[in-house]
Amino acid sequence: MKIAVFGTGMVGDTIGSRLIELGHEVMMGSRSANNEKALAFVAKHKSGAKAGTYADAAAFGEIAFNCTKGDGSVEALKTAGHVLNGKILVDVSNPLDFSKGMPPSLIPSLSNTHSLGEEIQKNFPTLKVVKTLNTMWCGLMVNPALIGGGNHTNFICGNDANAKVEVKKLLNQFGWKNENILDLGDITNARGTESVLPIWLRVWGATQNGAFNFKIVS
Amino acid sequence: MKIAVFGTGMVGDTIGSRLIELGHEVMMGSRSANNEKALAFVAKHKSGAKAGTYADAAAFGEIAFNCTKGDGSVEALKTAGHVLNGKILVDVSNPLDFSKGMPPSLIPSLSNTHSLGEEIQKNFPTLKVVKTLNTMWCGLMVNPALIGGGNHTNFICGNDANAKVEVKKLLNQFGWKNENILDLGDITNARGTESVLPIWLRVWGATQNGAFNFKIVS
Repeated sequence: MKIAVFGTGMVGDTIGSRLIELGHEVMMGSRSANNEKALAFVAKHKSGAKAGTYADAAAFGEIAFNCTKGDGSVEALKTAGHVLNGKILVDVSNPLDFSKGMPPSLIPSLSNTHSLGEEIQKNFPTLKVVKTLNTMWCGLMVNPALIGGGNHTNFICGNDANAKVEVKKLLNQFGWKNENILDLGDITNARGTESVLPIWLRVWGATQNGAFNFKIVS
Repeated sequence: MKIAVFGTGMVGDTIGSRLIELGHEVMMGSRSANNEKALAFVAKHKSGAKAGTYADAAAFGEIAFNCTKGDGSVEALKTAGHVLNGKILVDVSNPLDFSKGMPPSLIPSLSNTHSLGEEIQKNFPTLKVVKTLNTMWCGLMVNPALIGGGNHTNFICGNDANAKVEVKKLLNQFGWKNENILDLGDITNARGTESVLPIWLRVWGATQNGAFNFKIVS
């Protein structure tokens, strides 16, 4: 499958690399076509990796991952513009606000009674936004079996049922079992999954170990 | 032990009843000394249960549980006044805002960069506020073994280390094993544990089952 990965940070690199390992073709999108980190990503993979602008990547991908920083996600996606129409966007980003000290809080206008997932959906009505994987360290996103035999919880939400089916197939490829993928419903549920960050950051702070996840026990 | 339980709702009743079952004496505190629910609580227990005002309960208890609704907690505690000085308050409440539709959101002034736990601590500087148990259904608070062999996570935070030791002893009596009690540090970490509510409410909505909890898998 041809997949766009927006964002050149650790999350984009981890997801992009795993997708290539699984046999997909990946174009990493960023503000400029010759972004240093994107070129390094291309260089370290023997094949299957490309780099381009957000618009280039959007045109290339049948499906796209949003791994940009939350405070810039909407602006980044806007540069890809209409090329994204009708496609699936897997949104793994979080609206973190680093302006008020550490650990970061959530951007007030994108939390509590709103969310980044909804804001993206509102700005791109034909885009099929599927929010998932944003509640954990990126190493676990693409390889849940690293801890607890892979038996911990990944949330998913979004308005388009078929898009969620498609995204679940990719999650399965990453190693997620269906019984550990909890569908919360429409994209307003991003208010819930993005609100995991404040507790995630504090568990990380207390345990000094980011390789953990939440499991729903019932 | 003599214990005050502030609040006559389901949470206060559940915690108060379990404390009596464990052999403690409980005074349920509310706005008036003859609150109907508090009197019903007294009536259903053969012994060990009393009812009174918040101030009566504060004077009675060596330790107190705050089970009042989050939007009224500070006002309720103010009526107990100086009687609370130097005591331990186990705060299990959440700053839920029901004014903006369901599921409830968090009260903006008591979330994200602040929390109800901190607001209580700020208003009562000599009170030893210990935030815990607020991330789950009250049935599990007092009986974690109801699910998963009791192996799921309860967070605790507060500024006073000795107070946390005392509260952990009560948690142990409820059935919590020390390995499942995660100390996040000082009371600012209530920002994290209170932010569990938005995801808790949505998991509940999706599964239609409140008898679940989060477990940290690592």
